[in-house]
Amino acid sequence: MAEPISFHFDFSSPYSYLASEKVDTIAARHGREVVWRPILLGIVFQHWGTVSLVQQPGQGTYAPHDMARSARFLDVPFRYPSRFPVPTQQAARAFYWLDDHDPAEARQFAHAIFRAYYVDDRDISAPSVVLDAAAALGVDRPALSAALASAELKERLKRENEAAIAAGIFGAPWIVADGEAFWGADRLPQIDRWLETGGF
Amino acid sequence: MAEPISFHFDFSSPYSYLASEKVDTIAARHGREVVWRPILLGIVFQHWGTVSLVQQPGQGTYAPHDMARSARFLDVPFRYPSRFPVPTQQAARAFYWLDDHDPAEARQFAHAIFRAYYVDDRDISAPSVVLDAAAALGVDRPALSAALASAELKERLKRENEAAIAAGIFGAPWIVADGEAFWGADRLPQIDRWLETGGF
Repeated sequence: MAEPISFHFDFSSPYSYLASEKVDTIAARHGREVVWRPILLGIVFQHWGTVSLVQQPGQGTYAPHDMARSARFLDVPFRYPSRFPVPTQQAARAFYWLDDHDPAEARQFAHAIFRAYYVDDRDISAPSVVLDAAAALGVDRPALSAALASAELKERLKRENEAAIAAGIFGAPWIVADGEAFWGADRLPQIDRWLETGGF
Repeated sequence: MAEPISFHFDFSSPYSYLASEKVDTIAARHGREVVWRPILLGIVFQHWGTVSLVQQPGQGTYAPHDMARSARFLDVPFRYPSRFPVPTQQAARAFYWLDDHDPAEARQFAHAIFRAYYVDDRDISAPSVVLDAAAALGVDRPALSAALASAELKERLKRENEAAIAAGIFGAPWIVADGEAFWGADRLPQIDRWLETGGF
């Protein structure tokens, strides 16, 4: 099997959520796997000196409208969260802890967190929401709770963020297939064709 | 026939060029016409306090790469211009002068300017290039040259820019179909479906 595709995202990024609902299916169509990598866009924006889309002047009404419309276009359930954006450190750290033991379970957890935020309007910055989502998948809640407080796991997420920035990532979703980087959920059709044709 | 679609663009905007090669075909598929409206993105960005994509930190290498790849994806010939961006007042003013007399000829002129810039790497900020493009379509060159120097035509473009800003336009291409605004060439598939289904 060819090298896996990488998928960098922030749990608080709406277009990352849209991509999260499609990227595995697109990859599987071409016999490819996807490595999921949550990062903190706040840290990324701070590094580059940029701001998120919704904070950019003029975008105030357009961006949320486009997010909801893009979700309908992609047939993905979506509700603009009542708290937006929210810190996603806890969810991202929990993801890496799970991923080290069972990538498939980490993937399920990621879907659960995204849907808790973008479908059920839960506050995914709350440790209890993160722990509940993991526990619902059968994860040892006290063990995860202890891990979330560890310096080791905090350091792990820090390293992932630094690596993402070093790789030139300035936004999310950020998907790399065979060295080719694609930014944004609206590039999914290009990724599909890239995998189909080996580049165009 | 239903109301025409509006298409705001800047001759120096790469994604506007990509949209310009597709928007009429998409509209025609649904029995719709397109009203073309060149604007000056520099004025628009100044109003909103924003900068163009290529000036945003981190975008330096990604944006030109994405433009060329998006062009290949859409099967549109594209070469990143050696001078970029360039002032497009002359081309935009010439467009409106032509459009007042013959919208179809103005459309042909717009295609010629976009292709002069993005295929033949001509400096479309030069009045001679603008006049040559019009003359090649059989336009009265001295009459257009005189018009380009008139206060009236300058005022006309100013009004179009102001109207675009007042309508909330913050970027280009900006396409409105039945009151629904779409920003970016990557929204063309959404526009296609919107026209097909009457909204989704």
